[in-house]
This record gives sequence, structure tokens and C-alpha cells, in this order.
Amino acid sequence: MDLFNSYNFIGCESNFNESEIVIFGAPFDGTCSFRPGSRFAGYRIRIESYGLETYSPYLDKDLEDKKIYDSGDLELPFGNKEKSLELIYEYTKHILDNDKKPFMIGGEHLVSLSPIKALHEKYPDLIILHFDAHTDLREDYMGEKLSHATVIKRAWDLVGDNKIYQFGIRSGLREEFKWSDKGHTYLNKFDTSTLKEVIKIIKDKPVYVTIDLDILDPSIFPGTGTPEPGGITFKEMMDSIKLMSELNIVGADVVELAPDYDPTGVSTAVACKVIRELMLCL
Amino acid sequence: MDLFNSYNFIGCESNFNESEIVIFGAPFDGTCSFRPGSRFAGYRIRIESYGLETYSPYLDKDLEDKKIYDSGDLELPFGNKEKSLELIYEYTKHILDNDKKPFMIGGEHLVSLSPIKALHEKYPDLIILHFDAHTDLREDYMGEKLSHATVIKRAWDLVGDNKIYQFGIRSGLREEFKWSDKGHTYLNKFDTSTLKEVIKIIKDKPVYVTIDLDILDPSIFPGTGTPEPGGITFKEMMDSIKLMSELNIVGADVVELAPDYDPTGVSTAVACKVIRELMLCL
Amino acid sequence: MDLFNSYNFIGCESNFNESEIVIFGAPFDGTCSFRPGSRFAGYRIRIESYGLETYSPYLDKDLEDKKIYDSGDLELPFGNKEKSLELIYEYTKHILDNDKKPFMIGGEHLVSLSPIKALHEKYPDLIILHFDAHTDLREDYMGEKLSHATVIKRAWDLVGDNKIYQFGIRSGLREEFKWSDKGHTYLNKFDTSTLKEVIKIIKDKPVYVTIDLDILDPSIFPGTGTPEPGGITFKEMMDSIKLMSELNIVGADVVELAPDYDPTGVSTAVACKVIRELMLCL
Amino acid sequence: MDLFNSYNFIGCESNFNESEIVIFGAPFDGTCSFRPGSRFAGYRIRIESYGLETYSPYLDKDLEDKKIYDSGDLELPFGNKEKSLELIYEYTKHILDNDKKPFMIGGEHLVSLSPIKALHEKYPDLIILHFDAHTDLREDYMGEKLSHATVIKRAWDLVGDNKIYQFGIRSGLREEFKWSDKGHTYLNKFDTSTLKEVIKIIKDKPVYVTIDLDILDPSIFPGTGTPEPGGITFKEMMDSIKLMSELNIVGADVVELAPDYDPTGVSTAVACKVIRELMLCL
Amino acid sequence: MDLFNSYNFIGCESNFNESEIVIFGAPFDGTCSFRPGSRFAGYRIRIESYGLETYSPYLDKDLEDKKIYDSGDLELPFGNKEKSLELIYEYTKHILDNDKKPFMIGGEHLVSLSPIKALHEKYPDLIILHFDAHTDLREDYMGEKLSHATVIKRAWDLVGDNKIYQFGIRSGLREEFKWSDKGHTYLNKFDTSTLKEVIKIIKDKPVYVTIDLDILDPSIFPGTGTPEPGGITFKEMMDSIKLMSELNIVGADVVELAPDYDPTGVSTAVACKVIRELMLCL
Amino acid sequence: MDLFNSYNFIGCESNFNESEIVIFGAPFDGTCSFRPGSRFAGYRIRIESYGLETYSPYLDKDLEDKKIYDSGDLELPFGNKEKSLELIYEYTKHILDNDKKPFMIGGEHLVSLSPIKALHEKYPDLIILHFDAHTDLREDYMGEKLSHATVIKRAWDLVGDNKIYQFGIRSGLREEFKWSDKGHTYLNKFDTSTLKEVIKIIKDKPVYVTIDLDILDPSIFPGTGTPEPGGITFKEMMDSIKLMSELNIVGADVVELAPDYDPTGVSTAVACKVIRELMLCL
Repeated sequence: MDLFNSYNFIGCESNFNESEIVIFGAPFDGTCSFRPGSRFAGYRIRIESYGLETYSPYLDKDLEDKKIYDSGDLELPFGNKEKSLELIYEYTKHILDNDKKPFMIGGEHLVSLSPIKALHEKYPDLIILHFDAHTDLREDYMGEKLSHATVIKRAWDLVGDNKIYQFGIRSGLREEFKWSDKGHTYLNKFDTSTLKEVIKIIKDKPVYVTIDLDILDPSIFPGTGTPEPGGITFKEMMDSIKLMSELNIVGADVVELAPDYDPTGVSTAVACKVIRELMLCL
Repeated sequence: MDLFNSYNFIGCESNFNESEIVIFGAPFDGTCSFRPGSRFAGYRIRIESYGLETYSPYLDKDLEDKKIYDSGDLELPFGNKEKSLELIYEYTKHILDNDKKPFMIGGEHLVSLSPIKALHEKYPDLIILHFDAHTDLREDYMGEKLSHATVIKRAWDLVGDNKIYQFGIRSGLREEFKWSDKGHTYLNKFDTSTLKEVIKIIKDKPVYVTIDLDILDPSIFPGTGTPEPGGITFKEMMDSIKLMSELNIVGADVVELAPDYDPTGVSTAVACKVIRELMLCL
Repeated sequence: MDLFNSYNFIGCESNFNESEIVIFGAPFDGTCSFRPGSRFAGYRIRIESYGLETYSPYLDKDLEDKKIYDSGDLELPFGNKEKSLELIYEYTKHILDNDKKPFMIGGEHLVSLSPIKALHEKYPDLIILHFDAHTDLREDYMGEKLSHATVIKRAWDLVGDNKIYQFGIRSGLREEFKWSDKGHTYLNKFDTSTLKEVIKIIKDKPVYVTIDLDILDPSIFPGTGTPEPGGITFKEMMDSIKLMSELNIVGADVVELAPDYDPTGVSTAVACKVIRELMLCL
Repeated sequence: MDLFNSYNFIGCESNFNESEIVIFGAPFDGTCSFRPGSRFAGYRIRIESYGLETYSPYLDKDLEDKKIYDSGDLELPFGNKEKSLELIYEYTKHILDNDKKPFMIGGEHLVSLSPIKALHEKYPDLIILHFDAHTDLREDYMGEKLSHATVIKRAWDLVGDNKIYQFGIRSGLREEFKWSDKGHTYLNKFDTSTLKEVIKIIKDKPVYVTIDLDILDPSIFPGTGTPEPGGITFKEMMDSIKLMSELNIVGADVVELAPDYDPTGVSTAVACKVIRELMLCL
Repeated sequence: MDLFNSYNFIGCESNFNESEIVIFGAPFDGTCSFRPGSRFAGYRIRIESYGLETYSPYLDKDLEDKKIYDSGDLELPFGNKEKSLELIYEYTKHILDNDKKPFMIGGEHLVSLSPIKALHEKYPDLIILHFDAHTDLREDYMGEKLSHATVIKRAWDLVGDNKIYQFGIRSGLREEFKWSDKGHTYLNKFDTSTLKEVIKIIKDKPVYVTIDLDILDPSIFPGTGTPEPGGITFKEMMDSIKLMSELNIVGADVVELAPDYDPTGVSTAVACKVIRELMLCL
Repeated sequence: MDLFNSYNFIGCESNFNESEIVIFGAPFDGTCSFRPGSRFAGYRIRIESYGLETYSPYLDKDLEDKKIYDSGDLELPFGNKEKSLELIYEYTKHILDNDKKPFMIGGEHLVSLSPIKALHEKYPDLIILHFDAHTDLREDYMGEKLSHATVIKRAWDLVGDNKIYQFGIRSGLREEFKWSDKGHTYLNKFDTSTLKEVIKIIKDKPVYVTIDLDILDPSIFPGTGTPEPGGITFKEMMDSIKLMSELNIVGADVVELAPDYDPTGVSTAVACKVIRELMLCL
């Protein structure tokens, strides 16, 4: 009798001990300033992943050749961002302590702060590759230091200058762009056209990849908190991931899918495919 | 670390051996004549069930006091109704052979035929309580003998006269109503007003309960293949289930939720609550 | 070879000459003050009518026993209300001149003015039974005399006092209720509780029935321009239609379905069933 | 030239100083445990209120005869519940200090805690009338003391036994119902059938009315965080409000509309009408 | 206390007298031949504009450096196109008489006729830059001379040959394309590839820019009356606007957003960004 | 009196005998493995086609210059794939026997097998041009030989090696790609970049064109069973069709529109335009 009661991401059927990668969800969206709902990304991605194949014709690789454990979603206390960040940090450390690579599904972008902190402790020269429509460089948002609009600034508090590379950015305060221009971060406006050169520079460093899916044009990814027209195409995303396959990626996340805002289901399908391709690059 | 990777129906955390009830999904909608999509009911019900509590203030009972195993959805071959019915039949038998009670989540109504067959073999005097908007008494539908529009006629082929009690019926061919009138089935038009009397008659018999959720008014249950205005209220459904709690129910199913047709999610919430209440009555 | 290329309302397969009833659509929504889209009602009703049966268990009657011609939708010039009303008037006259009964599918409520005018010319003692959430008794709306908010006042201009009976009304200006109170129309607030008595009074008169579907509660009929909570249930609607079956109905319309505002499709299913039942009463 | 650039609730055109009632929004949904989005209720209610009339045929009263100021939405920091509650508290005090009555539009139910606190300081014998599907009596939710699932327990911390009357409750933990049963709150399960008697008891006391709109059946109010089938009808809601018109209501709120979950717009129309009627009772 | 009760377009906080640009809405959609609903564009654009920043990284300009007054929507009589056009004309003249530039948000395309008329009176050599999927060059539409399908022909009646430049056109009658080919208008099929050359020609002339947003591909702009696959990308739109920044634009409009047809909200976000960029070019 | 009761595809007003092309629908979706609903494509395409013009500015041709008969949808038995395929086969033969060209609207991709069979009998050297996101080359799917995931393999069973050219393929099992690589089919991954060369090779052969619309990127075509990000643009589709206009196309189909999954209606508009252009090439 064939029974189906697994809701792991497709092809992620290993147990914790044998796995090289651990995928987990961080269903927190408490600081989202516009449309909340990224908390629902984790389970929707797992279920819709069965519309995918495990094989990637882009990379000619198959998830079935990898050892990946899907631990499900963390249980996070609604409306408590400090404690949520703490729990995510602890679980990431647990993964790192067992010499596995963390792969997190958001939630809103603020959740990225925890794996960045844990990985930076392990790799002091950690490089952050940041794909996003928004700068996320505010010092605070309506008085709050911890917010999805400040997360990269908080990451910079940890890693400092010359460690953060931003791509696809097309929205922010004038001040944020100016602050970046002073050399605090590398910022590629609108697209990923300079990724190839950046990769040459950071090739030997440990790299954390954080993809805010709203970097994609809302024509292909409407299901997000703050859709921002003028983004990159899916093909550019695939090409960027392919380029990153030669990097030493030590952890990654994919955040800001808010599936209920896209009744067609396409945004979730996009998230699934980005995750499959990025996992195949780890 | 609290991790969440269970997608069982809420409160159904027992394993197969210790359980008294086994809940499973039959994601088949291949003969649906209008709007397909009941194949998606199983997993959506499991996930949305976490919006419920395990405690019922209607019955003052709690799912946590029961031993229930959720085996997930059966894997059924798309577009092959004979083989799908065969697989459902076999799994129901497996449950019965282990002295447990089957509780099936459809799929379309045709899937009910398999547990009815298995239970009728075990209980030759099996009574069928049928809740539905539609007669489902056609001899064939566009030439097909196996269809969601013929399923109760096929059940009658098995159990014969005086065994089937139908409630809530408000749509069908003139011929179907006439055929029933000849005494083949007991048919309560529009509502469940005679359920109390019927229960007195069948009290000592083994009973199979099949609830096509479109018996409910589409104001509260729009997410179904053929919404039929004029149905019973949710309160009438709850009252009917409460009445049935004194019966000897040996198996049950809840069918015809097509969740994608209700973007508000209310239909799925209704299905969850009907399932919780009916399981508490087994 | 069975081919399906008819999009008539189900069971309306007669030609014009042999028919006793002619059903036609008036896809005009140009004066709608809130959410437009009732122009799409006609074709959606025809197509979704195939989810119905031709047999009514409420009335124990079958559309197949009637001679009905479905002439399709009139082609009306967008944004020209005077000319649209003129075209509807002419077609209704054409139906009356051939001794058939007109049955119109709106469109917004303004379109009712044309068949009322044509029928009043034929039957000077015409009675109007008006089912609606709204009074529709304004003298003008933002300066416009012809509007879906003034249509019953315009009908009163034609037929005068003691001819219009309004049911289900639950929204309007204080002035409109006061004007009606002076005896110009009979107005049953909120429901149809006095319909039975009214029917006794008007039994021998020619009656025009105009049903603005927003008389129904938006729980069962959300797909309309101005949903107004607190309406009658579908069962009350069915009961009202049944009561009217003893009247001499010489024409009827069903208006204000805006199908795009109800993604579940239930509103269209409701409209179909109201039309079937009302046609069976003519 | 008629220009329209006001987005006040319909009929609320007074300025702060001349007003007797001040209506304001509290767009916070940070602890919502299921579907967030009640933050969007305020502006959607204001805009959709223009689908209403200012006149109520239920109460034969008109908003135009009242002096009401609509101050808009408070600007609350996303993801900081303590500070948000503080800001709401301060604004409510500002209203009370000017001898006006506060009328708050949520947001999630947690926001009710602030006006309750401010009013309880002013009226030590304050009575709370609580309309809701859920008990909201948890001591904590996933460790959090401040949550939309604990808000009435937190209110009880302030006002103590015999001050809180709950209506329509149909979901909660077994423990919550038991705790209430010990006499801490008065709890009317499922409906509002005992409201009339309660009103006799509390007639001379200052009363705060908090309406979690999910008390309504999701057939008429699907647009909410946790839809709970089996609720009261809109008519029962209207009747309850009418009964309360003889009370000394010193403040009120209407919470938990999440408009994006109801694409038909009916939930927002319901919220508007509940607010109109309740304001006419103040 | 920070209260939010402004619903101006983001960054448009000047009063009428101090402003250089006046933005206003013309919520008319009465001649729309397919899907109506552009009447709702004005307020939705204002509200959703708060998901934008005031700063444009495309132009490195900020709305906060401009003086813009948002006067809200005009109140137009539903279903009366002549009077609606008259009111829009009068308000545009009022703006021009005060030496400010009009910026109109539609509504359907017919509304553009009024500012064109007013501006042509002031600037007899007015050039019209027309961005659209459709020719809009019919002489009449179902007998109506004033229609969203005839508006550019009506504009030509005013300004004559060699004054109208059309871009992005991909749908129309064969006759319309032929009529244009005779030299009456300049027509760039499918895209904006010749805009640069056109700009050189018209550089010194006063220019009116009318953007029917359906020029954009429906992948990025589905929320419109008549979606027409094969349109320009958002990037091409941005590039076109940038090119126009060197022109002497004396007035502009952005029309045909029908927000209810795009449940993802992306179409409204697109409209907001087009408006921000175009206003920064005035 | 202008009445509208035709629901033919726009411009297809000829009768069977005078026609050169016969367009018909095959509303079968019984083996669909993910999201069903392509059964509704036929009537939605016909109705929405009236949002198109008959004239194509891409090809400078007009449907009004062609003789096309629209026979409506075949009536197929739900849930019986063998019989459905048989009925489609018979109708295609009927068309061929009358020396007309068949143009089929799906339905799921499995339906293509029948016209391919009929045409291969008439033209033994038939070439198949297959546009799709998916390989469709499985030997069986969950044990079923007839499935929308095996249809091209079944076609290969008929026509053999060197006859099938696949374009746009971006999803499949590793085994399927390998099997094709052995020379059984020509497979152009991701796009249609080699179509021009292929056309040179097959120029003199009779060609069947089967377009699974999910070849298009889901940004422009979300309304399909299995949306697959990374597809071709609408412009690439138009260019491909233009290239094919020099071929000897003896039959064609357009399949896998599931309109209910795209509430914006854009997917249906896309399907209409692809059909118009492809018919103009026959």
C-alpha cells in the first residue's frame, strides 16, 4: 500500500545524522511593514514542491544524489521577535555544531539575522551575498532597531565594511543609498550584472547567501509583502545561482514568500525552484 | 527545540497499532462532472486543522482522549477509477482486519463505494446514512456506471432496499426521486428533520455515515464541486452529528471539499470541524 | 457524435415562435454607483445553469415541460443609458406583440424600467412586486434622474400610487422611507413577512416581478454591486417564489448579479436557481 | 467643483473639539496566531463605508445627527506590542481627558487591552461585554502573556471577577471553559441568548463593549484571522446591538477584520454596518 | 501622538496655492467595453502608494523636493459621460488658470479628452504622446462617438494631423491601422523603439503625455479592462519615462487601472511607480 | 434588433461544409496529476475571445478572411480516458474525411494523442512540433500508460524516431532527458532557439503542431495545471508562430489552459491570442 504522509521538501528524505544539509523553516513575520503572511511559506513550499521534479536540467544535477534532512518549521512565539531570533540562532548553532550546512526558509527577512550571527561566529571572515529589491539598511524603522527593513544594517553591525554585497536593489530611502555609497556595502542597483566580478573577488571566502525573493520582478513573484516592479527575471535568478555554484557557500536562506497574496500559486512554484537550484549548489 | 514537522490532523498522534480509529485520505476526483479539485482536500484539511482546538464545547469531549492514527493520503493513479477504488478497498480491509474503524477524507463521492463494500462484507446488515445535496441515484452518467453521480445507486446494488437513508437532498433528476419513492431508499428532502426518528429505527445496527459536505448551504461551504443553494446550516449539521453519537458507527467518510474554490478558507475550516465532531462520535 | 455548442439557459431549447416565455439578457451596468460588472451576468448564468437540473423538487415541476426561448443578450451601447433603455423597451414590446411573456436577466436595476413601461402600456392596472435590499426611490442620484438608485421612483412616475409593493428593504435615505410612508408605495422592511397578505390583495391583477438579487443576504449572494448584510435567506426566497406561483405574472426580471465579485461561483448558482424557480411559476 | 478627498468613516465629519465620540484605528496584528492582516481593517472600513447610508432603518437614527470625529489610524511600530499598547492607551486617555467617548477599530483583539485599562482607571466598576467566538482566556500563548488569545484574561487581571460577560463563545481549551466556570467570567456558549437578562443586571454600570467580529458565522464574515463555523447570524448581531442601546456604554471597539481574506468585500461591509449601529447606540 | 488620516499620494503634501503640480482623480468608467472598474483606481493608488518610497533610484530624484497638491477624486455622475467630461474639463481649466500643471489619474481612457481639450486651448501647438495597447482610433463604437475606444480619434478632431504620436499599439481594427497609415497619426507598433527619435522632433513643443497602462504586458499589469498580451516590460516603461524627462510636459495622465481584477495588488504598485516617475519628470 | 447568442470563437462564423478549418474543444482533464480544470478552457476561450480583434497586426491578416467553423465542445464521459480518446479520434477523422483541417482546444495534453493518431494514418510521414515545459516522455505514470505525462511517448509509439521535435522543455525526469538524447526525439531545452533550423529541415512534410501553453512563462500564463517558472515570453511564442507560417500544418492543438487558476483572466486572453495567430497560419 503506497501511503503519502510525508510533507518534506521533495527529495529531502535523509535523517539528521546522515545529512550534509539541514533545511528548516522560520515562520516569523512580526515586523513586516506592509502585507504580512510569510509565516505560511514553509509548509506551502513543502507541499507545492511535489509539483517539481528532483532533477534540474539547468545544472544537470538531482536532489536524489544529495543527503538533505528537512526538519520542518521551528515553533516561534507570535509577536516576540527577540525570542524568535534567539530560537532560530540556537537551532542554526545546533546544525553547525554537527558540521552540517543550514538552509532556512523564511518568514520575513529579519530572520536572516540569526544564521548570519551563528555563521559569523564560526567564520569571522564571512561574506554576505544579499539579493533583494530593498536596501534594508535603515538604522531603525518607526523606532524599532530589529525589523525586516533594518536587517542588513544589523548584519553590518556584526560583520562590518567590505563584507556585504547587495544585488537587485531598487527601493530605499535616499539616505540608505548614500550610506552604502560611502563604502559600507557594495550595492549593485536594479540587477545582478556585476555578480560575475564579485564572485572572482570572494571566491575563497565562506559565503552566506540570503535571497529576499522580492528581488524578482512581481510579474513572476507577486506573492510577497512589498512587491516592487522592475525586478530581475527568473532566468537572471537562475543564471545568478549557477554562477554561485563555484563559491564556498556555508549557509543560505530564501525569504519573504507570502503565498496567500498569489492565488495562482506561481510564487510558491518559483520559491520551490529557487530552493532546489540553490540547494544543488551547496 | 520545538520543531514542527507533523502534518497529521490535529490530535491524531497515535500510531497504527495503538489506535482505535484510522483516518486516511482518498485524493481521487476523476469522475467529477463540474468543478474538480477535491483531490486537494486531504492535506489542506490536515494543515488547517491547527486552526481548531482539540476540545469540542458542543460535545464536551476532547480528541486528546481518543486514540487515532492519521495514515496520510493514499497514492492513487490519476484517471484510473477502477484501480483507485481497488486500492481504497484494500486499505479499508486492512484497517478492518486489525479491528479498527476507518475514517476516510475524500476526494469525490465515488470513493465512498470502497469502504461501503468492505464494511458490508463484514457487516451484512450495514445501514448507510447518506448526507448530501444530490440524490446520486443515477444508473449511469454519460454512459459511466462508476461516477460521483451514481455512487449511492452502486451502494444500493450492494446493500439493497431499506438500508439507505438519505438526508438534505435537493437536486436530482425527476426519475431519481421517483425511483427512491418506490421504496428503494428513504429520502428526506431538503433537510435532516426526520433524522431523530430514523435513529430510533436503526439504533442497534452497524452504521456507515457518508457526508457529502455539499449538503451544507454554500453560504458556509462554497468550496465544493457543485454548490447547491438551499442547504442545511452548520448548526443543523452539528445537531445531526450530536444525534448520531448514540449510534453504532462502524465507519465514516467526509467528501467533496474542493478547497481551491473557496479563497477565504472557510470551507476547509468547516470540513475540519465536521471531521472533529464526527470522530468524537465514533 | 455529441457536440455541445449551445449556451442557452438549461432547458430553454424552444424557438421563438413556439415559445410561451422569452428569456433575454440586458447587459447594462452604466449607472452602477459602487461595483460595476452586472453586464457579465447573462452569459455566466447561461453557462453555470448546466450545474443545475431542469427538475425542481421545490415545485415538483420540470423546465422540460415548458416552452421557453433563450434569445441571448441584447447588444447595448456602452455608456448610453437612454439608448440602452430604448432598445430593451423595443425588444420587450416585440415579445409582447407576439403574445409571449418577457423574462429579463440584468444588468443593473435601471434596466427594469423598460419592461415595466412596455407592460404598463399593455396592462394599465399593472402591479409591481419589487424585491430588493434598497429603496431605489431617490428622485435623482448626483443629478441623474435615470439611475439604479432611482428606478422604482421612475416606475412610480409611470404607475402611480398603490401599485408598487416593496420587500426586503433595509437601506436607503431617511427621506426615501418617509416618502414611501406617505402611501406612495407599500414597503415591507427587512423581509417578506407580509407577502402572503399582499398576494391575496393583488391576486387578480397582472403582476410584474422584479428581483434585485441583493435582497438576499450577502452570505449566500456576495456577487453584487452593493452587498448589504441583513438580507433574506435563500429559503425565504424560495418560499416567496412558491407563494407567487398563484399570481398572474405577466413578466419578470432578475437583476444585479456581478459575478466577478464572487470567486466561489455561488452567487451565479443562486441566480440560476432563482431564475429556474421563477420561470416555473410563470 | 465637488472634490472628494475625505476618507473619514461615513457621517463622521465633526472636528475633535465639537465631537462627542472619537473613532480611531489601531492597526496592530503582531500576535495573531493564524492569519494576519487585521492591520488593514481601518482604512478599508473607512473607504467601504461609503457603500452604506448614514441612516439606520433598524434604529431609525442617522449618523448625521451625531457629532463624531474620525482621527484616522494611530501609527504603531510593527512588531512591538508593548509600545503599541502604550500608544493606544495614551490616545484613549487623551480622548477621555477631553470627555469624549473612544471608539476603536482594530487590529487584532490584543489592542482592546489599552482602552479597557484607560476606562477602568476612570470607571473602577467598569463592566466588559465581550462578543467573540473564542474564550481568549489563556494565561499565556506559547509563553507570551500578551496575545490575542490571552487578552480577556489580561483584562480580568485588571477588573477581576464578576465584571466580564462573554457571548458567542464556541472555541477554546477545555481548561479555559473550566476556569470561566469557576465564576471568574460569565460565559454564554455559542450565542447571545442570555444578553437580555445580563443587560438588566448591568444597566446602571459603565460598560465597555468589545466585539471580536469572528463571533459572526464565517458565512457572513469570512475575512478574519481564525474563522470559526457555528457563529451568530448578522440578524442576531443587530438584535444584540439594539438591546445594548439602553446601556451606559462609555467606550467600544470592533476588532479582527482581516479584509484581504475576503475577496468579495462582504466582511468589510459587515464591519461597517456593525460600527454604524454601535456608534448610533453610544 | 502620530495619527495617520491623510490619504494623499505619497509625498504630495503641499496645498493648492503653493503647488506646481495638481494631481487629481477622474473615477469614470462608463463606456468601458469589457471589464469595468477603473473608477476605483484613484483611492487604491493613493493608499498603496505608501508601499513606495518617495525617492527614485532610477532618476535620483525625490518627490519631497517637489511641490505637489493632491486634490482627491472629482465627484462625477455615474453613467453620464458628457457631464463627467465637462466637470473634468472645468477642473483642468481651474488648474491651468492658476498656472499649475494637471496630472490626472483615470478612470477609463475617455477621460483624457478633457485635459487635452483644455491644454490645446492654452497651447494650440500641443503634441500628444500616447502610450497604449490599443489604437483608440475608431470613429464610433456601437454608434457612440464618445468611448474609450474612440478617444484618440476625438483628440485628433481637436488637434489634427502630425500632432499625435502613438506607442506600443498592438490591437485594433484593420481600418484603424490603415487610417493612421495615411499620415493622420504617427504609430509605433508593439513597442517604444522610436521614442528617442520622436523626442528629438518634438523637443521644443508643449507635450501632453497620456499613458494607458495596458501598454504594459499583462504579466506585470493584469489589472485592467482589456489585458492585451505582448506589451512592453516595466523596464521599457521606465526607460521611456526617463527619455521624456527632457521634454516640456505641460500635463499628463495615467489611466485604465482596474484594481479589482488583480488580487495580488501588483498592478496598483505598478501604477504608483509609473505615476511617481512621471511626476518627477514634470 | 441586435441580439447576441453566439458563443463561437471570434471570427469563426462559417458552417461545417464551407469551412477549411474546424475548431472544436476536448474538455478532458482526467489524468491531470496536479491541478485539474483544463476542461473549462473551451467555453472560456470562446467567450473571452470577444476581447480580441479578428485582425492580427503581427501577421497583417484577419480571421474574417478565413472560413472557419467552430463546432463547440465534444461531450466526453468524465473519468473514462479510453472512451474520451476514442470520441476525439472519431471526430478528428470526420473532419479529415471532409478534407478540412482540425484545430483542437484542450483539455489536458493527453487529448493530443487522438488527432495525432488520425493524422498519422492519413500522413504516414507526419512530423510533430511539440511546444511544452515538460518532456511528457514517461513510459507510464503511477502505472498508467495513458497520461498527460506520457503523451509524447505514446505519440512516439505511433510515429517512431526522428519525427518529434520538442521545444521549451525545462522539466522532466533525468531518465526522460537521457532517453531523448539517444536520438528518439529532438529536444530543444528551455527555449525555441533552434526552431528556424528545424523548420528548414521539415519544410516539405505534413506537420502537426501541439502547443502545451505551459511552455510560456507563468508570469504571463499562470492558469495551468503545473506552472513551471523559466518559460518563454509571449513575444517568443509569437515569433515561433510566425516562423511556422511557412510550414504545411495539417492540424494543431492548444492545450492545458486551466482558467480558474488565474483570477485575472490574462491566461485565457493569452490562449485566445495564440489560437488566433496559429489559425491564421494554417
